Amino acid sequence: MKQRIFFNEVVTRDGFQIEPEFIATDAKVQLVDALSQCGYAKIEVTSFTSPKAIPMLRDAEEVMGRITRVPGVEYTVLVPNLRGAERAMESRADELNLVMSTSETHNLANLRMPREKSFAALAEVIRVVGGRTPVNVSLSTCFGCPMEGEVPQAEVLAWAQRFADLGVRGLTICDTTGMADPAQVARMCEALQQRFAGLQLTLHFHNTRDGANVLAAVQSGITRFDGSLGGLGGCPYAPGASGNISSEDAIHMLASMGHDTGIDIPRLLQVARALPAIVGHEVPGQLAKAGPSTQLHPAPASVAELRAAFS
Amino acid sequence: MKQRIFFNEVVTRDGFQIEPEFIATDAKVQLVDALSQCGYAKIEVTSFTSPKAIPMLRDAEEVMGRITRVPGVEYTVLVPNLRGAERAMESRADELNLVMSTSETHNLANLRMPREKSFAALAEVIRVVGGRTPVNVSLSTCFGCPMEGEVPQAEVLAWAQRFADLGVRGLTICDTTGMADPAQVARMCEALQQRFAGLQLTLHFHNTRDGANVLAAVQSGITRFDGSLGGLGGCPYAPGASGNISSEDAIHMLASMGHDTGIDIPRLLQVARALPAIVGHEVPGQLAKAGPSTQLHPAPASVAELRAAFS
Repeated sequence: MKQRIFFNEVVTRDGFQIEPEFIATDAKVQLVDALSQCGYAKIEVTSFTSPKAIPMLRDAEEVMGRITRVPGVEYTVLVPNLRGAERAMESRADELNLVMSTSETHNLANLRMPREKSFAALAEVIRVVGGRTPVNVSLSTCFGCPMEGEVPQAEVLAWAQRFADLGVRGLTICDTTGMADPAQVARMCEALQQRFAGLQLTLHFHNTRDGANVLAAVQSGITRFDGSLGGLGGCPYAPGASGNISSEDAIHMLASMGHDTGIDIPRLLQVARALPAIVGHEVPGQLAKAGPSTQLHPAPASVAELRAAFS
Repeated sequence: MKQRIFFNEVVTRDGFQIEPEFIATDAKVQLVDALSQCGYAKIEVTSFTSPKAIPMLRDAEEVMGRITRVPGVEYTVLVPNLRGAERAMESRADELNLVMSTSETHNLANLRMPREKSFAALAEVIRVVGGRTPVNVSLSTCFGCPMEGEVPQAEVLAWAQRFADLGVRGLTICDTTGMADPAQVARMCEALQQRFAGLQLTLHFHNTRDGANVLAAVQSGITRFDGSLGGLGGCPYAPGASGNISSEDAIHMLASMGHDTGIDIPRLLQVARALPAIVGHEVPGQLAKAGPSTQLHPAPASVAELRAAFS
């Protein structure tokens, strides 16, 4: 039952992307370097998108050029199109992460084109990359669309199949706005593993039911997760919905259960505790505030007195 | 696999107890009355403790006298001693909830006496009550003490056994500061149900790993939970640790999985959304902010234009 679990830290891409104030390139590089020392399998560093579309990540080349790469850690990047893929490969990304939605409405809202157009564009990227760099595809809204509602599991599997047929290395199944429940997660994970046993399968959850969905996925045999330090991130199409799952909370939970996450948790907590100063506000993650469950607290002085009085 | 799940709402006792500003008696009565309409199995209304020890709950008699009792809802109260039990029975409480810790240090810190003294005092309460009102015992720190660390499961079961031998109706097994992990929860729940099949067994979790511990307990067959509206509450001996699980978040998760919680979720969310105004600050619960997963959001206007453009 104890498994090796692989975490992909997405805070500097998915987390930072919705922050209102530009975060300095130096701070991004330092944060990625600190995270590289924590034992992550993968770090999604940035996005090679248009600087106009996402000004926060306009320094993608500089960040990729300045980070210190630690052997054993994969540095992945988001890539929206062919131009982004070329820039990412020039920056020696270890993996290209492509994204589209399984919901037509969400794809139109987020990527401003129908799903078929997105698929054709991403298929062209995969063809041009031609295996020089491994490709992962992140499918959004797989557990429900905040505008359309239910997204049938069969539809998710059909989109996943089309990308599997193109030879991608991995698929990330995203609960983009936190609509999944653990029973649905279990059904999805079982279906995915039956059908795509040869692929890296990663689950991406949001915080609304956080730990429970991670638990349901691990119980179903899933071993790869996205997480965002401090729980940063969110989706503009589901106002009020909470952000990504907090990496440190999920990792601590799985480690407490005896799973091997590969992560140096005290070191990770140090990094997590520096995050509010970087983004300029409190973050939702619980563990950085509470400390790990193994960290004990002093008893109040009265306890010693009472112990003596009653002994 | 679909189960009837029973929730005990503890916000007006456990949640309010650590609030710094006195909450008016009128507001307490109105909140209990609103919660009574939501479908809870039980509401822990207040505590018959000394007004000096917990000034927030000095209005216990008045609150119990003024609430409108809804048939099918049990109104339970915390009782620290014989005097509290007498006051509670005069106030026609449906259940007396007694409490002690399974950790010696936590019992000394919290109740200012050794566990054996607490047990003797509570045993005397149970004897005097003599079955006139059902008794529940809440055992604190069953998944770890923030000062001592591990509390062996065998020790928890031994304390539970001593109260079961005295004829209590139910036991609440509390993760007082949020130290439990889901694997530990599964082991504990299986042992409890084997040994105390005839008792009402309730699990009380804190928010650190929230939904995942509830899920693990339900998977193990547990059907009774404490929850605190908005996630209010906490424990002063674990600084930084998060409060109780949010009732509405846990209930929504279980309902989404198909379990029957008996709760009118839209009505509960209305009550939850009024809570910040009552306590004068934001509360941690996620669902009141995000809305239920069935509540959809309008697509941005651009989607209709894009749909037309691509059709």
